[in-house]
Amino acid sequence: MAAMASFVSRRRFTVEWSHCDPAGIVFNSRFFEYFDWGTWTLFEAVLGVKPPDLAASFGIVGLPLVDASARFLAPARFGDAVELVSHVSAFRRSSFDVAHQLLVRSEIAVEGSETRVWAGRDPDDPTKIKSQAIPAEVMQRFQVP
Amino acid sequence: MAAMASFVSRRRFTVEWSHCDPAGIVFNSRFFEYFDWGTWTLFEAVLGVKPPDLAASFGIVGLPLVDASARFLAPARFGDAVELVSHVSAFRRSSFDVAHQLLVRSEIAVEGSETRVWAGRDPDDPTKIKSQAIPAEVMQRFQVP
Amino acid sequence: MAAMASFVSRRRFTVEWSHCDPAGIVFNSRFFEYFDWGTWTLFEAVLGVKPPDLAASFGIVGLPLVDASARFLAPARFGDAVELVSHVSAFRRSSFDVAHQLLVRSEIAVEGSETRVWAGRDPDDPTKIKSQAIPAEVMQRFQVP
Amino acid sequence: MAAMASFVSRRRFTVEWSHCDPAGIVFNSRFFEYFDWGTWTLFEAVLGVKPPDLAASFGIVGLPLVDASARFLAPARFGDAVELVSHVSAFRRSSFDVAHQLLVRSEIAVEGSETRVWAGRDPDDPTKIKSQAIPAEVMQRFQVP
Repeated sequence: MAAMASFVSRRRFTVEWSHCDPAGIVFNSRFFEYFDWGTWTLFEAVLGVKPPDLAASFGIVGLPLVDASARFLAPARFGDAVELVSHVSAFRRSSFDVAHQLLVRSEIAVEGSETRVWAGRDPDDPTKIKSQAIPAEVMQRFQVP
Repeated sequence: MAAMASFVSRRRFTVEWSHCDPAGIVFNSRFFEYFDWGTWTLFEAVLGVKPPDLAASFGIVGLPLVDASARFLAPARFGDAVELVSHVSAFRRSSFDVAHQLLVRSEIAVEGSETRVWAGRDPDDPTKIKSQAIPAEVMQRFQVP
Repeated sequence: MAAMASFVSRRRFTVEWSHCDPAGIVFNSRFFEYFDWGTWTLFEAVLGVKPPDLAASFGIVGLPLVDASARFLAPARFGDAVELVSHVSAFRRSSFDVAHQLLVRSEIAVEGSETRVWAGRDPDDPTKIKSQAIPAEVMQRFQVP
Repeated sequence: MAAMASFVSRRRFTVEWSHCDPAGIVFNSRFFEYFDWGTWTLFEAVLGVKPPDLAASFGIVGLPLVDASARFLAPARFGDAVELVSHVSAFRRSSFDVAHQLLVRSEIAVEGSETRVWAGRDPDDPTKIKSQAIPAEVMQRFQVP
């Protein structure tokens, strides 16, 4: 997959008053909410399935997070027009990484990463979830020829 | 019920940085989140059931909101020690009102009200919810002799 | 002003996973956050000033809320395409009401109202804020001939 | 400092309905909000200064985040009694790391880390902030003899 580019989604929005803290900048937890928006946006764009239909369409229960991180390089302020750029940076057997960049005035203000699991019901205990192999056709769709 | 007092729950907490907006005061939507905390706290105190067990204990699906309102009399600021005082101000057949007061330095900063429904599965369509009569023993427990 | 129509702003967005609670529907406090988005959107559309520049442009400190309310008529769910319709329903000397409707599939799911104050620095105590008369030209711009 | 233990703060609270997503578990961004609570709690416990007075007491503007991360090992659910355990895991000249553990039923559900800067006004441009050397007495207070 090294030679293949990965599909990139872009989502533009404006920083809301409600996202900002007393320092007048986006409160850190909101960036992780933005990343969640970005991942749903990316998967809808690539797989062509509405987010609430994703689980049923692929026989999974969801894409639970196991890891999230962010580097805050520059503040994002109330009213800033921002762009969230997201792509899958790595696929493994049953998990994957989504890389996010939040651009403010075309410069990277925040870099983030999420690791998520392709999770279904545990066949031995349907009250639990268990990672499943990501279907090859799902991974292929994220590749840009 | 006019001659009966209603049980009052009190919950003390501190206003967090994450609750405040660029004006340095609690952002309005957070007060409605506080009210939700207050209602769960009140019901646990009165009914003696942990919030996640409430629905199953009473054969309902939950207590969905149909109305919420707040009057903002004074700001609550980062670090303020506040007290949330909550009680059921009215019971009707299948709905009830919860009145909330948020005290800052013993003065009322915010007054709020929620109207919620005692909701179960609709027997005609289990994918829907339907209001149910609130059991008499539930209402009685909220009364202070 | 009775014979005048008031400018209406419309904002479309999708209900995010992060907005929803364990019942799978938008958590109530998020609607008040939506209303805040709606008011900023309306004022930018009418006054032609970016939200973070509004206060400085009009010599005020902001538009603090003194009252907010909502009626929840139908749930909004993860992935729902919604439209937030906002207009000023009443101007008074130094305060005004913003009426909001959240449409899901063209039906009103939530009706809300905010009362806000046109607030400047208190000339007698600059650490405090004080309501000011809303300029006539501001009110006029909200009218649709 | 290798031989010194670092002061640990503990904060107990209950997972609220408002913190949970449609999967019935705490939404990931809320953990970063918890971490922020934990850092303020730790600094108040160690330095004996109320959070809103911290900046003025030490001649800084705040403790802005430059990095945050979390590993999600087990879900935290509505109603879970949790304990947030926080300590400074490293001090550098002008920045430091805070390590957080969220315990659910005495097991680690989430591990997190924040990197924050000891930030004052930039003497060359007071509209900007600039990292400052953390006072030795601040670092000493975090050590447990």
